[in-house]
Amino acid sequence: MIQNSKLIGIIGGVGPYAGLDLTEKIFDETIAQSDQDHLPVILLSIPEKIADRTEFLLGKTEENPAVAVAELIHYLEQLGARVIGIPCNTMHATKIFGTIQSLLHQKNSKVHLLNMIKEVIRFIKSNHPEIGRVGIMSTKGTYKSEVYKNALYENGLEPVLPDVALQNSIHDAIYNPEYGIKAVSRPVSNYAREMLNKGIQHLEKKRAQGIVLGCTEIAFALTEKESEGLKLFDATRILARALIRETYPEKLRKF
Amino acid sequence: MIQNSKLIGIIGGVGPYAGLDLTEKIFDETIAQSDQDHLPVILLSIPEKIADRTEFLLGKTEENPAVAVAELIHYLEQLGARVIGIPCNTMHATKIFGTIQSLLHQKNSKVHLLNMIKEVIRFIKSNHPEIGRVGIMSTKGTYKSEVYKNALYENGLEPVLPDVALQNSIHDAIYNPEYGIKAVSRPVSNYAREMLNKGIQHLEKKRAQGIVLGCTEIAFALTEKESEGLKLFDATRILARALIRETYPEKLRKF
Repeated sequence: MIQNSKLIGIIGGVGPYAGLDLTEKIFDETIAQSDQDHLPVILLSIPEKIADRTEFLLGKTEENPAVAVAELIHYLEQLGARVIGIPCNTMHATKIFGTIQSLLHQKNSKVHLLNMIKEVIRFIKSNHPEIGRVGIMSTKGTYKSEVYKNALYENGLEPVLPDVALQNSIHDAIYNPEYGIKAVSRPVSNYAREMLNKGIQHLEKKRAQGIVLGCTEIAFALTEKESEGLKLFDATRILARALIRETYPEKLRKF
Repeated sequence: MIQNSKLIGIIGGVGPYAGLDLTEKIFDETIAQSDQDHLPVILLSIPEKIADRTEFLLGKTEENPAVAVAELIHYLEQLGARVIGIPCNTMHATKIFGTIQSLLHQKNSKVHLLNMIKEVIRFIKSNHPEIGRVGIMSTKGTYKSEVYKNALYENGLEPVLPDVALQNSIHDAIYNPEYGIKAVSRPVSNYAREMLNKGIQHLEKKRAQGIVLGCTEIAFALTEKESEGLKLFDATRILARALIRETYPEKLRKF
């Protein structure tokens, strides 16, 4: 076991580039002048073992990806990881995330698994108390699971969700095998980018005051900081910052 | 132990962004239409444990980073990794890499540790038989260790090395705490980029027919494919392709 009380573990592979993106954002958000200043991180990217989470939530497969993820977290813990992040919003749907938590509990896991959705809400409430209506851009799986919607309500925030047609086109911008971000990300296709921008305009019309980029792939296509005055919240960067806060808070860059 | 006979292990942290860069290049060089198509990879980035390799080679520290790296490779092997890459050219100096190999041998390791320098030479010889004179851009540590120089000679290629002043400025472009790539990489400073471009022009004047970007950080500043007709070889991408070749050759993108 690696002797480090603050080793950060990342469940990658969901998708692979999101695992990289979270790791990169941890490095970017760390105050460091040399290689040695950077935080200890282990990224485990074994996508073949993890069933598609949206397909599970939509009932297209019976296999709950939680089982494989709990097993991978267990490996990371055995190696010494103490704090874990999963850079996939859809994985945080209760049917999956709750199962991961139960399975870890059964294994007597001591690992601290952060909840990306809760971190996003916490971030908005702490940094943008002026925002009441929060738009959500996500996959169909996350949408159907209502994970953001419920968490926002529970925290006194008003969720602003896309209408069905727009939700379908946002999902398509991520998953379409020809032009979706999962298939074409270097660079993202203009068509996918356009569909996402239409999603933003749509949510703005519905009076969202800020928008959560609630699928890790969306942040590959949109610069997160601002879109014509509207705040965009990158869930991956927020999770990266939370992982630093839980391990080496003194090294967290000022926001 | 993770049940996968072809798990790729990466020793990150030397430096942290080079570990990410290698992982990203493995994904980029893989034929994949979905998350699940991507290769199993584990990236271990624990920079605080690994002494600076250039300082060791220059005699500024007694601590051989090989000891920590061999230990980390051992952890990766215990977790199931079978093939290992270290995305740091300087780590491949004989005084370090040879020690890693001996330590692994002592531990009865069965892991297949690729040698980035040998992979670069192999790549040049297979893909560019027309090239005889090969320029080397690297840190002072790699330069002083003569690892590329010797490997090129052994393979019937002529090394073209920068003069001392130019070598110093290339090293500075990487290590300077104010404008060097290790300190400022997002984006790389114009000054560092300019110094690297001067290095290329210098090696071209010395009749190099191709240039090895023999420090992982250099590839962050220069696009690798070509610089005014001169071939630039990105050691990190070559290592990424070698890792795929050794595990899932059928998924290696055509070059």
